[in-house]
Amino acid sequence: MTKVFDQPDEFATTALAGFCAANANRVAAVPHGAVRAAPGAQGKVALLVGGGSGHYPAFLGYVGAGLADAAVAGDVFASPSTAWIHGVARAANRGGGVIMGFGNYAGDVLNFGAAAERLRSEGIDARILAVTDDVASAGRDEVSKRRGVAGDLLVFKVAGAAAEAGLDIDAVMEVAERANLASVSFGMAFDGCTLPGKTAPLFTVEDDHVALGLGIHGEPGIRTERLVPARDLAGMLLAPLLAERPEGHEGRVAVVLNGLGRTKYEELFVLWHHLTGMLAKAGLTAVDPEVGEFVTSLDMEGCSLSLMWLDDQLEEYWRAPADAPAFRKGTVAKAAGGSEAAPTVTEAVAEVLPGSAESQEVGACISAIMDKLAAVLSEAEEELGLIDAQAGDGDHGQGMARGSAAAAAAGRDAVKAGAGAATVLCLAGDAWADRAGGTSGALWGVLLRAWGQVLGDQERPSPQIVAAGAQAALDAVVRLGGAKLGDKTLVDALVPFVQTLTAETAAGTSLPEAWSKAAAAATAAAEATAQMTPRLGRARPLAERSLGHCDAGAVSMALSARSVADELKTKA
Amino acid sequence: MTKVFDQPDEFATTALAGFCAANANRVAAVPHGAVRAAPGAQGKVALLVGGGSGHYPAFLGYVGAGLADAAVAGDVFASPSTAWIHGVARAANRGGGVIMGFGNYAGDVLNFGAAAERLRSEGIDARILAVTDDVASAGRDEVSKRRGVAGDLLVFKVAGAAAEAGLDIDAVMEVAERANLASVSFGMAFDGCTLPGKTAPLFTVEDDHVALGLGIHGEPGIRTERLVPARDLAGMLLAPLLAERPEGHEGRVAVVLNGLGRTKYEELFVLWHHLTGMLAKAGLTAVDPEVGEFVTSLDMEGCSLSLMWLDDQLEEYWRAPADAPAFRKGTVAKAAGGSEAAPTVTEAVAEVLPGSAESQEVGACISAIMDKLAAVLSEAEEELGLIDAQAGDGDHGQGMARGSAAAAAAGRDAVKAGAGAATVLCLAGDAWADRAGGTSGALWGVLLRAWGQVLGDQERPSPQIVAAGAQAALDAVVRLGGAKLGDKTLVDALVPFVQTLTAETAAGTSLPEAWSKAAAAATAAAEATAQMTPRLGRARPLAERSLGHCDAGAVSMALSARSVADELKTKA
Repeated sequence: MTKVFDQPDEFATTALAGFCAANANRVAAVPHGAVRAAPGAQGKVALLVGGGSGHYPAFLGYVGAGLADAAVAGDVFASPSTAWIHGVARAANRGGGVIMGFGNYAGDVLNFGAAAERLRSEGIDARILAVTDDVASAGRDEVSKRRGVAGDLLVFKVAGAAAEAGLDIDAVMEVAERANLASVSFGMAFDGCTLPGKTAPLFTVEDDHVALGLGIHGEPGIRTERLVPARDLAGMLLAPLLAERPEGHEGRVAVVLNGLGRTKYEELFVLWHHLTGMLAKAGLTAVDPEVGEFVTSLDMEGCSLSLMWLDDQLEEYWRAPADAPAFRKGTVAKAAGGSEAAPTVTEAVAEVLPGSAESQEVGACISAIMDKLAAVLSEAEEELGLIDAQAGDGDHGQGMARGSAAAAAAGRDAVKAGAGAATVLCLAGDAWADRAGGTSGALWGVLLRAWGQVLGDQERPSPQIVAAGAQAALDAVVRLGGAKLGDKTLVDALVPFVQTLTAETAAGTSLPEAWSKAAAAATAAAEATAQMTPRLGRARPLAERSLGHCDAGAVSMALSARSVADELKTKA
Repeated sequence: MTKVFDQPDEFATTALAGFCAANANRVAAVPHGAVRAAPGAQGKVALLVGGGSGHYPAFLGYVGAGLADAAVAGDVFASPSTAWIHGVARAANRGGGVIMGFGNYAGDVLNFGAAAERLRSEGIDARILAVTDDVASAGRDEVSKRRGVAGDLLVFKVAGAAAEAGLDIDAVMEVAERANLASVSFGMAFDGCTLPGKTAPLFTVEDDHVALGLGIHGEPGIRTERLVPARDLAGMLLAPLLAERPEGHEGRVAVVLNGLGRTKYEELFVLWHHLTGMLAKAGLTAVDPEVGEFVTSLDMEGCSLSLMWLDDQLEEYWRAPADAPAFRKGTVAKAAGGSEAAPTVTEAVAEVLPGSAESQEVGACISAIMDKLAAVLSEAEEELGLIDAQAGDGDHGQGMARGSAAAAAAGRDAVKAGAGAATVLCLAGDAWADRAGGTSGALWGVLLRAWGQVLGDQERPSPQIVAAGAQAALDAVVRLGGAKLGDKTLVDALVPFVQTLTAETAAGTSLPEAWSKAAAAATAAAEATAQMTPRLGRARPLAERSLGHCDAGAVSMALSARSVADELKTKA
């Protein structure tokens, strides 16, 4: 288990600081991540990689010539926030656009996606590259649903080499996506890992058993079998990958045999001894195989095998030189790097451009609404936590309370700095996403920012513009979050809210009235996510409640809409 | 625990094969080890490193330009045999002599020492470099008794760079020994590791505790304390090393923060974050610090900190480029390596030069004696095991039976090939060391080889020459094994044996008679190692025996001497 830490919630940031200190000649620290100490050539495509901490060498260990330009590190096994990604991406940008590579997990998809949108809105061409190599997590017909595991290294290596070679962003994306589609992995675990500060492992595997197809955070696998000799384990790793061999593929493969933390080098070499024979028998030629620890999961006991079906270009980029703290290959030409020093980046302090007098007034009103919202969500924290605990991990109330409080504070600061409506909402959204953590925090950040951008910092928005903002917010949430109506998420409450608000404002209803009706529609929809009727916004003893299967995200969305309606009526 | 293996006793050899296969572009496999795929320059000093398996990257991962020329791998946590070391050293030799670096453990000292003697007898200048960095294992006044742990990397790196720079063997040894004296380490463990095939760890640490100063195989530490935050752990690692700071040292240090297997990278980076501040506060400057896994112990949970107090030359060699599978630094100039291919080495088949007719007769007689000896030791296997189990791990009987049987077989083969006395004894000794394993096996190999070399392959040896051989055997055992009279080892029986044999043969007693008296002296001495009188060579029910504290090595030595005496009388 993880034994070396101070406060558990400082573990990831302290580790990042230590990594940067230990590799001070290779990387430069930036807030929440690291960039190359010797930046790549001006105009090159920048590759930013990242995800949760606890997977070293992924992702920080891959920052260097021929591989990544930067890495951003979230908390342990948690996506970095949108703002963190955005900040590191800006530091990494060399003028050729930024490709953001990460393993395909919901939180990462959301935050990297949101950061990409924000970068594009600032004129930086940003693309996302979600690695989907884990064959155990979805079938061949649903490749885009597959998780990203140790295939990260294969895909990042190709993307990094292509970027270093000077390809433009479209060309790098093309080869990187080809590398991703050509990469397959299968993993097994013998025992779980333990998060800093926890006393029990995230998951366990029965003694003398092996869990096949397990995800790197302990996500469910395919099946559990009795432990067998190494030769048979090697066969178990390889078989699911051979089944994915593209028709007619000639057989040259890049290979990564990866230890997850506690399955050590000698064990991996024993597996590799058996795999060499099995690969040859299958007509495969391993090109520059890598055997070691590349994507770990703290002290998880287990390993994974990854193959990339090579074509000439993929092979060229897989074999190209690289020089990062945890991955070196060949000799990197000095000329590949730029000559200037790494950027000195400090935590971004939002620059507030004053809005018009009219919009400042609206901003102040929004700020007051955020205060009310925060108060309501704080009061409902326990209730929301209990609802969430029925189906999730029970932290929804805490996240909403923390996020809304941060958003309210950011809104007040923005108002003091003379911000208009858009800026107040955008900064409130950023603060929410940053402090709330988790998927819902990121979605609320996206929601407020998208809404704000429609309002602008100049005009007093009409009710129709407010409704248009709501639609933009919904669109952004759906686009980045991926949930549809009926998935039992906040979308279920947000869709009827936006529909009602749009219809009512279009019909000339006043904003307070229209909002009130929209909030009622959201409440009904949130209640409908439950089998029984919840009593929204009222903390009651657990025994009296029947909130069983209500979705906490929809409930908090409806609750928020109602609190705003109340506030709008007061103001009207 | 170690989960990936086939047969436990195949683990180390299979891992070696897998390592060589995975790194086929960097190393070439030789029996029981690996050499550089691109050998170093002709005439350079070769650095051979090695020890037990289970410590990767030590030792195989360090074979490459600027570091080691070769590595030899023993069984898990067990010294490679003399013959294995000898074979790999011959493959590594580039004409400039061979330096053999290893951690200071009894078995390694013995086997590397014996191999060095054998190489020197073949005209190869061979030196041993026992790393003694672990401050927890002995005081500053007994530095030579300290164990070798992760300081291996510091010392090997300096030695490797000095050898690559073209220094001659004396100069490389001088700087390597200086590096060793300048290197200090301190380790801590949170939990033990489990050998392949075993179900219980080698040792355990109480939950929520940390064992300070523990050796890498679980050798006792200094004390156990309650687990504390990372900052305090960092202080515990550093304090014992600061106490070793050489007077007046200016403060530039090479640093290795090493994970033992299950304490993972992020935890090490957290420690490093704290250590940077502490080092600075102590007025120390970390030069090219290394944070990661360098000398592991299977899946042991723990870590160690190593410092090398730098002078200009040590710093130059520490910072010099290197390119090995598990350690790269800077850029190695192509010119550093030779251009020829790695040697193709197969398992050494002893070449038997026929002895004189007279000596062949003596050889046949020796072979018959070895047969008798093997039969007696086989019969006594259980008895010797029971004696050994009183104080050791109970495997002495097995080792002696296996070793003597192999020696007898090798002796017969040698006789068939026309070997004289010396060759029969040398080959029998090599076979004994190879098959018996353990310290006593290695010592018996040394003993027979040293004895044989005095007899020669030409003359019929006089009783005085036989006694001189016995003296040479004793000298070699003491020189390489390090035991003195009274240490309760086979030396306790061998010393009176040699004294009596020497005195009696000098006085003109016939060899059978002299030997018989010498064997009686050995028996009395062996019995004296016990508090009560053992009954040598007779298997009896445990309840009847009173072998309590008799030394098994002395008993088997005396038993062997008696069996030879019987055989000599029969022949006479």
